[in-house]
Amino acid sequence: SLGPTFGIKGGAAGGGYAQVVPMEDINLHFTGDIHAVSTAHNLLAAMLDNHIAQGNSLNIDPKRIVLRRVMDMNDRQLRNIVIGLGGLGDGYVREAGFDISVASEIMAILCLANDLDDLKDRVKRIIVAYNRAGEPVTAGQLKAEGAVAALLKDALKPNLVQTLEQTPTFIHGGPFANIAHGCNSVMATKMALKLGDYVVTEAGFGADLGAEKFIDIKCRYSGLQPDAVVIVATVRALKSHGGVAKADLNQENLEALAKGVPNLLKHVENVTQNFGLPAVVALNRFPTDTEAELDFIQAECKKLGVNVALSEVWAQGGAGGIELAKEVLKLIENGENNFRFAYDVNTGIKDKIQAIATKIYGADGVDFIGSSNQDIENIERIGYRDLPVCMAKTQYSLSDDSKKIGRPKNFRISIRSVRVSAGAGFVVALTGDIMTMPGLPKVPAAENIDVDSTGRISGLF
Amino acid sequence: SLGPTFGIKGGAAGGGYAQVVPMEDINLHFTGDIHAVSTAHNLLAAMLDNHIAQGNSLNIDPKRIVLRRVMDMNDRQLRNIVIGLGGLGDGYVREAGFDISVASEIMAILCLANDLDDLKDRVKRIIVAYNRAGEPVTAGQLKAEGAVAALLKDALKPNLVQTLEQTPTFIHGGPFANIAHGCNSVMATKMALKLGDYVVTEAGFGADLGAEKFIDIKCRYSGLQPDAVVIVATVRALKSHGGVAKADLNQENLEALAKGVPNLLKHVENVTQNFGLPAVVALNRFPTDTEAELDFIQAECKKLGVNVALSEVWAQGGAGGIELAKEVLKLIENGENNFRFAYDVNTGIKDKIQAIATKIYGADGVDFIGSSNQDIENIERIGYRDLPVCMAKTQYSLSDDSKKIGRPKNFRISIRSVRVSAGAGFVVALTGDIMTMPGLPKVPAAENIDVDSTGRISGLF
Amino acid sequence: SLGPTFGIKGGAAGGGYAQVVPMEDINLHFTGDIHAVSTAHNLLAAMLDNHIAQGNSLNIDPKRIVLRRVMDMNDRQLRNIVIGLGGLGDGYVREAGFDISVASEIMAILCLANDLDDLKDRVKRIIVAYNRAGEPVTAGQLKAEGAVAALLKDALKPNLVQTLEQTPTFIHGGPFANIAHGCNSVMATKMALKLGDYVVTEAGFGADLGAEKFIDIKCRYSGLQPDAVVIVATVRALKSHGGVAKADLNQENLEALAKGVPNLLKHVENVTQNFGLPAVVALNRFPTDTEAELDFIQAECKKLGVNVALSEVWAQGGAGGIELAKEVLKLIENGENNFRFAYDVNTGIKDKIQAIATKIYGADGVDFIGSSNQDIENIERIGYRDLPVCMAKTQYSLSDDSKKIGRPKNFRISIRSVRVSAGAGFVVALTGDIMTMPGLPKVPAAENIDVDSTGRISGLF
Amino acid sequence: SLGPTFGIKGGAAGGGYAQVVPMEDINLHFTGDIHAVSTAHNLLAAMLDNHIAQGNSLNIDPKRIVLRRVMDMNDRQLRNIVIGLGGLGDGYVREAGFDISVASEIMAILCLANDLDDLKDRVKRIIVAYNRAGEPVTAGQLKAEGAVAALLKDALKPNLVQTLEQTPTFIHGGPFANIAHGCNSVMATKMALKLGDYVVTEAGFGADLGAEKFIDIKCRYSGLQPDAVVIVATVRALKSHGGVAKADLNQENLEALAKGVPNLLKHVENVTQNFGLPAVVALNRFPTDTEAELDFIQAECKKLGVNVALSEVWAQGGAGGIELAKEVLKLIENGENNFRFAYDVNTGIKDKIQAIATKIYGADGVDFIGSSNQDIENIERIGYRDLPVCMAKTQYSLSDDSKKIGRPKNFRISIRSVRVSAGAGFVVALTGDIMTMPGLPKVPAAENIDVDSTGRISGLF
Repeated sequence: SLGPTFGIKGGAAGGGYAQVVPMEDINLHFTGDIHAVSTAHNLLAAMLDNHIAQGNSLNIDPKRIVLRRVMDMNDRQLRNIVIGLGGLGDGYVREAGFDISVASEIMAILCLANDLDDLKDRVKRIIVAYNRAGEPVTAGQLKAEGAVAALLKDALKPNLVQTLEQTPTFIHGGPFANIAHGCNSVMATKMALKLGDYVVTEAGFGADLGAEKFIDIKCRYSGLQPDAVVIVATVRALKSHGGVAKADLNQENLEALAKGVPNLLKHVENVTQNFGLPAVVALNRFPTDTEAELDFIQAECKKLGVNVALSEVWAQGGAGGIELAKEVLKLIENGENNFRFAYDVNTGIKDKIQAIATKIYGADGVDFIGSSNQDIENIERIGYRDLPVCMAKTQYSLSDDSKKIGRPKNFRISIRSVRVSAGAGFVVALTGDIMTMPGLPKVPAAENIDVDSTGRISGLF
Repeated sequence: SLGPTFGIKGGAAGGGYAQVVPMEDINLHFTGDIHAVSTAHNLLAAMLDNHIAQGNSLNIDPKRIVLRRVMDMNDRQLRNIVIGLGGLGDGYVREAGFDISVASEIMAILCLANDLDDLKDRVKRIIVAYNRAGEPVTAGQLKAEGAVAALLKDALKPNLVQTLEQTPTFIHGGPFANIAHGCNSVMATKMALKLGDYVVTEAGFGADLGAEKFIDIKCRYSGLQPDAVVIVATVRALKSHGGVAKADLNQENLEALAKGVPNLLKHVENVTQNFGLPAVVALNRFPTDTEAELDFIQAECKKLGVNVALSEVWAQGGAGGIELAKEVLKLIENGENNFRFAYDVNTGIKDKIQAIATKIYGADGVDFIGSSNQDIENIERIGYRDLPVCMAKTQYSLSDDSKKIGRPKNFRISIRSVRVSAGAGFVVALTGDIMTMPGLPKVPAAENIDVDSTGRISGLF
Repeated sequence: SLGPTFGIKGGAAGGGYAQVVPMEDINLHFTGDIHAVSTAHNLLAAMLDNHIAQGNSLNIDPKRIVLRRVMDMNDRQLRNIVIGLGGLGDGYVREAGFDISVASEIMAILCLANDLDDLKDRVKRIIVAYNRAGEPVTAGQLKAEGAVAALLKDALKPNLVQTLEQTPTFIHGGPFANIAHGCNSVMATKMALKLGDYVVTEAGFGADLGAEKFIDIKCRYSGLQPDAVVIVATVRALKSHGGVAKADLNQENLEALAKGVPNLLKHVENVTQNFGLPAVVALNRFPTDTEAELDFIQAECKKLGVNVALSEVWAQGGAGGIELAKEVLKLIENGENNFRFAYDVNTGIKDKIQAIATKIYGADGVDFIGSSNQDIENIERIGYRDLPVCMAKTQYSLSDDSKKIGRPKNFRISIRSVRVSAGAGFVVALTGDIMTMPGLPKVPAAENIDVDSTGRISGLF
Repeated sequence: SLGPTFGIKGGAAGGGYAQVVPMEDINLHFTGDIHAVSTAHNLLAAMLDNHIAQGNSLNIDPKRIVLRRVMDMNDRQLRNIVIGLGGLGDGYVREAGFDISVASEIMAILCLANDLDDLKDRVKRIIVAYNRAGEPVTAGQLKAEGAVAALLKDALKPNLVQTLEQTPTFIHGGPFANIAHGCNSVMATKMALKLGDYVVTEAGFGADLGAEKFIDIKCRYSGLQPDAVVIVATVRALKSHGGVAKADLNQENLEALAKGVPNLLKHVENVTQNFGLPAVVALNRFPTDTEAELDFIQAECKKLGVNVALSEVWAQGGAGGIELAKEVLKLIENGENNFRFAYDVNTGIKDKIQAIATKIYGADGVDFIGSSNQDIENIERIGYRDLPVCMAKTQYSLSDDSKKIGRPKNFRISIRSVRVSAGAGFVVALTGDIMTMPGLPKVPAAENIDVDSTGRISGLF
């Protein structure tokens, strides 16, 4: 995604010896998939507004348009805008806004679609607005699915790149990990399964978010089923969960680690007990980690019957992951696999949210505040009761309060609003304000990015 | 450009046997050049607004921002907008707007740049706004040229496609033919000259616009010099210039033709006498053209010492253009070539506009109305007196009134406003309101575009 | 206020024999006081925006302007607007909004000011915005207090009208009863005290709001102290508090009454025990009230040592209030008067809110949610810790949930945001979204208002 | 009007001994007439937007609303705004704007109405918008005329004040002298005629605007007919018309005067020859005027058969106008009065504009540019061909170019747009951009206006 690349974050192609190439292309336009998603999304938006400006035979309520526009840019100016100003031929006036392209429902669809036909069917179902009677209006009613799919026909094909050690790698799709499910595409995973003996795939954010959505959304829709789970952790992050300030993370601190490790253990429990999958903890080793710290983690995990493998792939490439790989192979062959979802999809939306909150997060319960009760009622009314739920929650805590570190107890989850991504096929439950269009920092990374006369790029990393 | 493809126009890859392939790719994302231009442009816009929101150390006047955003879409809703609404962290409020991507100054730069360094230099000079003291603020002051160029490094490379008969063809760049110069890129033309024996290039709109800008802007900047000129005409268009309604164009009408032909002759005179180049008229033959009509045109052109060649490439491919090709070769070898520009670039802006209007359009003079006097004064003050001029005028008449067909006499040109594209390197003189963001029609082409499960696209042509 | 007059509500000059005249003038422009407030308020707003547009030497942050504009109209279109669009001379762009004129802080000031000098001092203190450093910017810094006061010099003078029975009556000022204190002016009350033997004054909404603000704000600032309190009630309202639907209020329902009466008793307790004042309950009698119902109320009040007097002033004018008047006189002469405020003004803002919520509303406690913690911190930081608090709460319940009728128990009050009206001299604690600009109904009263050729107005009542 | 009072201009109650009292009241709220006009106007606007928001049964096109809102304030921020932002209950989004209250069509109506019934009829005819079929929608269709008239019932009554010498004076109404007719009310003039022996009335701006509109609009509608005309001039203004800079106006300059006097003579000719009325020139004497200058003017006027009377009312009050008064009496009794209009109202709109431009301004002709042709076609189509024309033209020149001083020759008038004030009963022809909402200057007069504790106002003059 170009927005963050030119903003605060720089690229996202890994680092050290654990890197995919061609790094620069991956971080810039790559194969143009995100551009295709942006264009497809904005064509849908233009068709929607054109429909209204040309007579509005679908009787769409301009105050109830839910489709925003997208741009692959960090541009806070476009978050909240008014469009359609000007004369008679310049459209009609309304409030609108832009999200970053990866937040597009079309990106989520691209990543969940099994093929072009499935993609078109999902696009047809996207709810773009509500009419004056309160009924949903879809992309299908605007006859947009064909053109949208035509724009996506190449983007739907997985992109093959490689690691520095020539391992084939698919990079395909990037749905937001909060309002969407945060995993790469179903087609890429399936293609990888056809081509390789073993396939490793990533699920964004902590296991409470990434693993849960991977299983309850992506696996559920695609029929995929993992053979083993690698839970990645670092000593530093666990000390941080134990209350250590960033500046002090280099010091050994077993006391803090003892406070922070329960966070990891909850993730382990979720994987093994809630999802019924064999798991290993991969500890990404840092030079400042002490043996005592590593041992402590190992011992705690052992109590749950889970091994810990040190990973040094950043420094050593593949060689640094041999131990981990062996453990994974062992789990695949011998691990107990009782794969199951966190909830039955055919229960009510509130029941599903409740299940995730109590089982996966460890909450005491859920409060439905703000517009959430009304939102759920509406979504169930219009026929989307049986969709899986995509939680939009902070990744910094198992709770919905980013300050509650470690393994919080005695907390409740508050759901403020609920939306339906009917095309992607999930209900999004928001626990707070989610930023879907980032801004640039005071000194954007862009100021330091350059290209010389030979085409060599600098400042991207 | 995707906007028109999904709007009213459909694709732009030729037709019949005179077509380039792969048509669908060319009409969709192609090599992603326009996406790169859009992203580069919008990054610049985001950096500009971010600069202001983060403290505005350049003291930019938010009411005097001249850079708009772009999108490769026909979306009238985005013509005039208000951005930056919302809370403290959501930017600052101002009026803004989107143009279609091909209207971006960066597209014009891409097409005029000799290489990456030249591209960066031009990007640096783009005037994005004026500060509160009235001085220009440039992309260079925002330190954007490196990142912009990095985004364009691949787009700057010409794209090689082919005709149905396997003739190599470069399709590269598409600057608007009104507010920009409307020709393909200098790099593509130069690369073609290295690779082929003969290079044919196109200049958009009538010769009063296309040829004039090709010569006075593209040739002037690149040092290119044409060996011969093909002026394309049709019997139908000339009858239309003689006052025949569209429905009646199938009937022979020598009287109307006699009234319309002076339009063609003016273009011929411009090429041979004003630009000093040898020329041939290529008549694209239609089944309804009569011999008498064809003869008449031939005879009239003869009087100016210019031959007419019939062209049937739509129906017959290359074979249909043999006669024309022979005439072109003859001109290249034996034609009198006294190549010169329409004006001396080191005269004042008004002088240059005057020269184009009187010599090329045949106007009696120029009226500077609206803000044009003030605009010119400002542009000359800030140091851009010596740039060539890019006229934004209707292509339907030699005058600035689309209803004055044929070869109008006794008219004056009115300049309403003048802008500078300091990066592209020309001053734009506008004779009226120029639409830089089209809208969709009542039934957009998009509604009929589809892709089947095998990836075959329909509805694009 | 003209807004409601032409909207849903019609006039507000009483009814039956309990009416003030001249009714039509009172309901229309009256003496122009509200127009003066509107103009004074909008002059301040124009000076503020002009200051920014002319160079902004006070470095005001356009995103942190708190002063809105006002209009004496029910006009929902003006609630949320964007202003300053257009060219260089047309100001600067920002979000803004209009409130109805009576919601102006200047209206509250007019009603609390002791004289012109006090008025000017208060106007000077109005916080109109915050600068980029987060410090308040006041009307005094804009040098607006003189002109604002000049516009209000006549509006500050109380308006003398009369009842149908020629009793002199002051009608002066009308600050909103939610975001402001809802009582008529201090100057009118004081003037009445100089002129009459007994002065009756009204405090808007229920005693939890009206009486509390009258005492804790108006009395505190003016030094006024009531001799006795009349608490107005109706059988119908109390049955409604007991859960009876509107359509069924005509039926005797002692059971419901028993459930509803505790609401009245809480108000009685507040007056007698919390504010230490002698009280009488005035029952506005309706034909459908039964003796049993009236007796029940009487008995219940008796238990608290408070008498009930029937009031029939609507039907009989002054004669219908003799019993009540006698009781009031008795209280004035013999009642126990231990007048005290609900809280010590020199405690923190949260303490004061807590005191009102627990003592007056009967809440278990207060939750500070949304921006309220930050708001309070800011208000105390800039020096307004010691102002009285003006609660903006629903008048339909003693709690902040309009559905909790009767005398609710076991509830907490949620404060969502807190503002300071530094000129008026109070801190406003908002328990929810408060509508400060009403809208018109489907068929506005205005459609039925008319004036004949003799100037006689119809449709106002 | 309060806007200018607090802006750049200060009050408008005369000066020296030629002043009306009570000056402060007249310059502030006075009798509230402008407030009544503002409220009536904004009620109409609120009813219009409410109609659309509540279902829009009249099918009004939100892009073709012509009614703006008004405020009696110089507030440039409100010139161009977007309204109706926010949620479902907050109206609908559209562009809008505020004019200063005196620019309201209702102000023009108030000044032209013969009585309440006529006022209501005119209000009914106000065109507030066009529907989607292009047909006008009126205030009558919104059922607003009754409420609007009710709000104006007292404002319609003339206001009696007095000069410093106790001469009774009516001050009533103030329609803009550009987009409206610029005279006081018909009712005030008629009431004065009933009460006094002689009535002097003023018509704003130069005689080309003021006198023309007074006669062709006010007299035509009311049946009034002047007995004599006083044309006011100063030596300084005429030297200014002769090209003298402001700083040099104190020097005698007969040459410049000779160049400037033809301006005066054209006004004299217009009055005597075009309108057929007896006239006298009143020279407002300044200390720097020399005898030679005064004599020169006198001699030139004499040639046209018109006398000049010196006026010293500023310094001497009534005594300073005796000579002028005598001349006026003489004209009334003995002057030749062939009163006629400048044009026949039953000719086309273009004919009427042509007549005013050529006869009154001395133009060679009229150019209809911009939208004016289309505007006129529309106005005639919807039935308003036979209304008188109200010219909106600069008051600084007889032409439409404020720099053409003296008595310009060989010029044409350009009409850029034309509107209809169907309620007021005239067609407004605009020769340029007319500012209908002023702004405040860098240091507004308001900063220096104050009121002391006794209510004495300072800073108003």
